[in-house]
Amino acid sequence: MSKVADNMFEFVQAASKRLRGHAHITPIMSSRTLNQRVGAQAYLKCENFQRVGAFKFRGAYNAMSQLSEPDRKRGVITHSSGNHAQAIALVGRLLGIQTTIVMPDDAPATKRAATEAYGASIVEYDPQENSREKISEDLENKHGYILIPPYDHVDIVAGQGTAALEFFEEVNSLDMLLVPCGGGGLLSGSAIAAKGAGSKCQVIGIEPELADDATRSFQTGTLHTVNNPPTIADGTRTPSLGEQVTFPLVLKYVDDMQTVSEEAIIEAVKFLFSRMKLVVEPSGALGVAALLSGSVKPRGRVGVIISGGNIDAATMKKILDS
Amino acid sequence: MSKVADNMFEFVQAASKRLRGHAHITPIMSSRTLNQRVGAQAYLKCENFQRVGAFKFRGAYNAMSQLSEPDRKRGVITHSSGNHAQAIALVGRLLGIQTTIVMPDDAPATKRAATEAYGASIVEYDPQENSREKISEDLENKHGYILIPPYDHVDIVAGQGTAALEFFEEVNSLDMLLVPCGGGGLLSGSAIAAKGAGSKCQVIGIEPELADDATRSFQTGTLHTVNNPPTIADGTRTPSLGEQVTFPLVLKYVDDMQTVSEEAIIEAVKFLFSRMKLVVEPSGALGVAALLSGSVKPRGRVGVIISGGNIDAATMKKILDS
Repeated sequence: MSKVADNMFEFVQAASKRLRGHAHITPIMSSRTLNQRVGAQAYLKCENFQRVGAFKFRGAYNAMSQLSEPDRKRGVITHSSGNHAQAIALVGRLLGIQTTIVMPDDAPATKRAATEAYGASIVEYDPQENSREKISEDLENKHGYILIPPYDHVDIVAGQGTAALEFFEEVNSLDMLLVPCGGGGLLSGSAIAAKGAGSKCQVIGIEPELADDATRSFQTGTLHTVNNPPTIADGTRTPSLGEQVTFPLVLKYVDDMQTVSEEAIIEAVKFLFSRMKLVVEPSGALGVAALLSGSVKPRGRVGVIISGGNIDAATMKKILDS
Repeated sequence: MSKVADNMFEFVQAASKRLRGHAHITPIMSSRTLNQRVGAQAYLKCENFQRVGAFKFRGAYNAMSQLSEPDRKRGVITHSSGNHAQAIALVGRLLGIQTTIVMPDDAPATKRAATEAYGASIVEYDPQENSREKISEDLENKHGYILIPPYDHVDIVAGQGTAALEFFEEVNSLDMLLVPCGGGGLLSGSAIAAKGAGSKCQVIGIEPELADDATRSFQTGTLHTVNNPPTIADGTRTPSLGEQVTFPLVLKYVDDMQTVSEEAIIEAVKFLFSRMKLVVEPSGALGVAALLSGSVKPRGRVGVIISGGNIDAATMKKILDS
């Protein structure tokens, strides 16, 4: 049974109040060169400048700040090797909540180090031998931790939706909003914010071609999955939309889904680097990739959510070389 | 004889009005991590987001928009292989003024291409055989072009000072302002703006150790020079402060000069990339280098001008590797 409530927009509005003074109100950037290249007025909401370098801080803070005192004492667990892990770890430190992150033993050393630096405990597992869900469940049962998953959770979705809410407040109207899609937390939250704000804005989720599970799920109404797809956009390597929360919300609120090639993603990261002086991770560049490659034909005032900037030096070097 | 007027602050204020609607009002960024590392409140004025990717647009627009109709018809010439060349070329296109750029024949292909893309004519010369001043002078005499040099010009200085003027308007008070120094246009303009705004802010120019001519000139009161110093901060490879305009202004308005090592510059570019998601060229990172390395001991609210973001892929790769 779906956990989706009818008043999700109110949840986003409440999250926005909760985040005030804790999350950054990120800047909105534009570029004459980009506008000329794509023949539209594009606005980029720069969540690469958010705390921990990605929108994930919003959902983590919204979820964890609502925990009761006894639940805070139990501690929080999650499974992620990416931006959600760092967000949970940082919010844990800010709120004095002990956090445990279940991470594959082949996670990049830099991501592990960043998460540990925020004070989280890391539990490693061998992804060939075990599933992260099983490990998390065992630890939940053993220690009584509260699980806050990366996207399939109402409070996470509501938190992620606050970026789009801010975006609409600042730029007034948008005709289109392009949002990267991994597990669908940011996409569904953004779509709820767009529709709730009474806007006629068309909300389009963007995925890599190599990780097109959400596009197929959206088109067929049946949940499709991918298995660790080899896309450079590591934030979108999630197996599928969330069955309980994000899949129903994407079906209900999102207008369309489009995919982009790996070449288009690389081109977009380079464009953002050289022309706009922005450090953006591959997943964060999906919307710009859709515009520059023509996967999405822009219309009027186009909003693009730049979801994050956590790209390691090796990946950036590879992209600058190509 | 010095060309410095007593009412330079009025020139900066007039430039600011002239630039309205043409130059970007660039964002001011901050970082908790930076503040913790340096033990102060630091604000970065991000001219890497300015048009052409550097503050140079300000001076070029301020100077060229004041040309009389007959002078506009004559066309403008300058000598530069860097950001000033691109700024002159772009402003020429915006104002319908033909521009000629004298560039060494070993200038990076990307910089040449960017300048040509704005519609400027390039005149190459062999830096082993000729001086750029001589080539420019010959072309001025032959074609009647108006010379707009990169920094030793009152209207250029006044234009560059508008970045600091905006900075003070937006953040209210600053106790210290750190400004990169090449030819001294940005530094002297910023100091004029700081003092003119009635601020008690201490203005400090930052140079690479390897290109410390302005520091020596400041300390001795005599103009010192360097000859194509091997610093990674290519914007500071200018031979000296400008004898007519920027040297007297630096002596009059700047409070101090400090130098930073090449290692500190590289560290600062990496920090800005990985922690603040900003693409900054080595010259643009001098202020952050001074803070992170301890060359400048920060006091209270510290403003830092990030002068530009035009770093080529090869240089960024080298920095990310080191």
